[in-house]
Amino acid sequence: MSHALDETSTFTPAFDGAGLIGAIVQDAADGTVLMFAHMNAEALDLTRRTGLVHFWSRSRGKLWLKGETSGETFKVVSLHVDCDQDCLLVRVTPQGKGNACHTGRRSCFYRRVTGTGLAFES
Amino acid sequence: MSHALDETSTFTPAFDGAGLIGAIVQDAADGTVLMFAHMNAEALDLTRRTGLVHFWSRSRGKLWLKGETSGETFKVVSLHVDCDQDCLLVRVTPQGKGNACHTGRRSCFYRRVTGTGLAFES
Repeated sequence: MSHALDETSTFTPAFDGAGLIGAIVQDAADGTVLMFAHMNAEALDLTRRTGLVHFWSRSRGKLWLKGETSGETFKVVSLHVDCDQDCLLVRVTPQGKGNACHTGRRSCFYRRVTGTGLAFES
Repeated sequence: MSHALDETSTFTPAFDGAGLIGAIVQDAADGTVLMFAHMNAEALDLTRRTGLVHFWSRSRGKLWLKGETSGETFKVVSLHVDCDQDCLLVRVTPQGKGNACHTGRRSCFYRRVTGTGLAFES
């Protein structure tokens, strides 16, 4: 890893071959990890300019304001980038009912991996 | 997204075209997001069997016991998968000195994205 990436104060997000960067979404209030999705340059720019989290939907092949249909938007509290600038961490205040996952649950990580399969926790 | 993936109790991690799945590492004690890296099937299996986090290093093209040289290993507390089973959340107890990042910092997310660039927080 180059020193240029991990000790610079210049933001140069390392988009992958598909033009995407991963983004971890964390509840700023209590640290719960809510979801993980991808941003392209436009989604990142819109997230920074509007203060609402935008993603690039790989399944739908389109820009996506998180919560645009469900109302479950995320208000940005802070945005961080990791050492090699290929992952983002977005701390948010969930809006709407606070059910971030499309299944209606608060977090997408509602199943624990056990020795034999998955255990539902919500 | 198929119902089969988001409501099943069968663990079927959705490895990508390169055979990898993203893994968010979070400190189980206080919720700090420490790093993000990738696992292949072998790294995931070793993580589950040994209780120590393993990754696939994309830059080095090899299996990687996190902390094998630095001593900064991660003891697994819990493992979760998200709704579409293409991202893992590993809650850990950091071992060693608790400096997970290769730069010697506790977390890889030590820089905040500001309006003009990056602000170092550690």
